[in-house]
Formats: sequence, structure tokens, C-alpha cells
Amino acid sequence: METKKISVPLLMRLPGYLDYLYSLSEEDNATVSATAIAGALGLGDVMVRKDLALVSNGGKRRVGHQRNQLIQDIETFLDRNNVSNAVLVGAGKLGQALMSFEEFEEQGLNILAAFDKDPVQYSENCPKPVYAMDQLEAFCYRNRVRIGIITVSASYAQEVCDKMVDYGIEAIWNFAPVNLNVPEHILVQNINLAASLSVLRMQQIKQRRMPLVETTA
Amino acid sequence: METKKISVPLLMRLPGYLDYLYSLSEEDNATVSATAIAGALGLGDVMVRKDLALVSNGGKRRVGHQRNQLIQDIETFLDRNNVSNAVLVGAGKLGQALMSFEEFEEQGLNILAAFDKDPVQYSENCPKPVYAMDQLEAFCYRNRVRIGIITVSASYAQEVCDKMVDYGIEAIWNFAPVNLNVPEHILVQNINLAASLSVLRMQQIKQRRMPLVETTA
Repeated sequence: METKKISVPLLMRLPGYLDYLYSLSEEDNATVSATAIAGALGLGDVMVRKDLALVSNGGKRRVGHQRNQLIQDIETFLDRNNVSNAVLVGAGKLGQALMSFEEFEEQGLNILAAFDKDPVQYSENCPKPVYAMDQLEAFCYRNRVRIGIITVSASYAQEVCDKMVDYGIEAIWNFAPVNLNVPEHILVQNINLAASLSVLRMQQIKQRRMPLVETTA
Repeated sequence: METKKISVPLLMRLPGYLDYLYSLSEEDNATVSATAIAGALGLGDVMVRKDLALVSNGGKRRVGHQRNQLIQDIETFLDRNNVSNAVLVGAGKLGQALMSFEEFEEQGLNILAAFDKDPVQYSENCPKPVYAMDQLEAFCYRNRVRIGIITVSASYAQEVCDKMVDYGIEAIWNFAPVNLNVPEHILVQNINLAASLSVLRMQQIKQRRMPLVETTA
């Protein structure tokens, strides 16, 4: 069997391709070229062509891919038809917003339940069941949970992360503004909304003539 | 007046410091050291010390900062007490989730309204008013909107972005999986949940022995 090399940036681009393809009519099942996708998404067309060749055998030279086949190939590549069980820790506002976002399920993420220090406080507004933290271990093992979502505050996130790793979770989606310490075999993806927003708002500080410099320091 | 240099990474770290400081008791108003913050957030303490010196004059050598004063200094630095008016375009699930996340307001972001091609479809479930796209221009000017949030699909995002720029918006928070094309003076911050999730889920593909390589290609 041929082994294909999958890069992280490729994985990050594929959902964009899908999103664009979904927007085209299913009934037309039109032919889509790499150039058209590249143009719509602001990407280079050589790169898009290479990406598509890696995930689909259905492309025809100088013609392109059929929409429906290409969607199916990318979905298969991203394993969207298999659903991963996930738990979320931190049932506050952000956690609730994530649980109510049903499109994650289409992307293969099945958030089974939330866990919180104070489950009673949140269980009313929460679209998924909320359990106490001491039930996390048994729940993870019983449901073969492999993905953990952290939506607690910064000061509590590392403790939650350590528990998740102990309980067999392999991939952590971290929404807390913390650099998590994890063993090498654990994958972490960080989404830091507050950080992103603070940079965005500083546009206004720039207008007040304070220089905003781009450095990595 | 002394001009201070603000780096983007610094701006991205400050919300994490705040989040940690909020978790400490207000009444105690304890002394907090850069080392304690660095430890809690998984950061280097020299860097944290420099960051704090830049945003606050209240630190005492070998002692640290008082919690309440440091919170106030960081909040002032991030301009959290002034609220920026924002509009959101795309009133679907993700847009609704963002609008229901009240903590953005504490961070200085005031989402006034949503706009959508199909306002009627969404207005029932939406925590903010939903208007038709042809009202966006007048709304932006009337309310001095400076921040635009894009939560439409990939194929429609650039069009929305162009409108926002035309209507005086200076900073765009983009949740669509697209590289937006903007004039130089416009700031874009991208949050791509689907991309992040696809990388996270590939942890499982790794287990099926397909190599995941870290490249920038």
C-alpha cells in the first residue's frame, strides 16, 4: 500500500475546499477546477492542484473534478463519516456555544457530554448533559472518548488537561488562554478567541498613534 | 510622551494574564509575581516580567504586582473599558453562537446586529436583531461600526469582506475558511474552527499508520 504524506497545512485547507464545494449545486454536479477553488479561497492554484491530486484520483487533466465525487473524496480523506466521541470540560458560556454548534457533528465531532466543577449551575441551559468532574474518568473509558475540549479558565486548564491525558484522551482542543504541557504523543490544537480579539481591537489603538510592531518576541 | 512598542504576540498573551488574575480572589488582592503567572500559563518568566513592565508601573522588585492594580492596568492597556461597535454577517449557527457569548462584551466587543441574505430565516433564534444585507451600509455609518465579523460560507466571504471595507470597517474577524484579500490598512484576524478540528481528528488517522508530517507546504 502506498503511504501518502499528509501535512498539517493541507489538513487545514481541506475544510475550506469542502465549504466552497458545498456552496455549488449538488444537482448540477458541475466540473470544478483547482483554479476555480484557488480563486474563490484566495490561494495559489498550483498548491490547490497538488492538494486535490493527493486526496482524489477523480481529476481529469485540463478538465477538473466533478463536484460530488470530489466532496466524497475529501470527506473520506478527512474521515468525516466516522464520528469521534468527545467530552467538553467547562460548561460556561463558551462551552455552551460550542455544544450548540451542530455543524461539528457533520465534521465528525460528537460531543457526548460536558463536565464541570458545578454541574447543577449549568445543566439547565446546556444542550448536552452536564456531569460532575469525578465522573469524567469512568465516562471517558466507557465511551472510548479520544477527544477532549477544554473551555475552563486559564488557571484550571492544565489540571483538566492532565486528567484528560490520564483518562486516555489523545487529542485536546484547547480554548483556554494557556500553553498546555502534554506528553509527546498527545496532540493539542489551540483556539484563543480572546487573544485574537485583543489584536483586532488594537486597530483602534493604532489609530491613536501607538505603533503596533509585528515581532515574534 | 513615551511611545511604547506593542507587539502582536504581547497582545495575544495579555488576555491569558487577565484570565489568570480574575481567578484569584479580589478581596485578598494578593501580590502576584511574574513567575507565578508564567508557571500557571506555561510561559517563560522573563518574558512575562517584561510584558508586565510594559503595561504596568505598579510592580515592585522581588515582590510583584498587586492583583487588582495589575488587572486594571492590563484592562486599560487593552482598552477594555471602551467598547467597539461590531456587526456580524452570516446569522447561521456559528454566528448565533458568537452572538450569545456575552463575554465578548467584557472584552470590549459590542455586537450590535447581524446581517444575512435571508434575515427572516434566522431572526427567531438570534439574540441580536438580524437585518437584510442592503441595510449594512447605512447601519455601519450610522453606528460608527469599526469591526466586522464574518461567519458566512467560504464562497461568499470575500464579497462580504469587500462590502465591509467599503463601508468603513477597519478590522475584520474572519471565521470563514478563506484567505481574505484586503487593502493594507485593514486588519484581519482569522479563526478557522473547521481547520483546527480537522487537524485534531487526524490524530486518529495517525493511529492508522498514515504519517502526518509537519511541513509548511
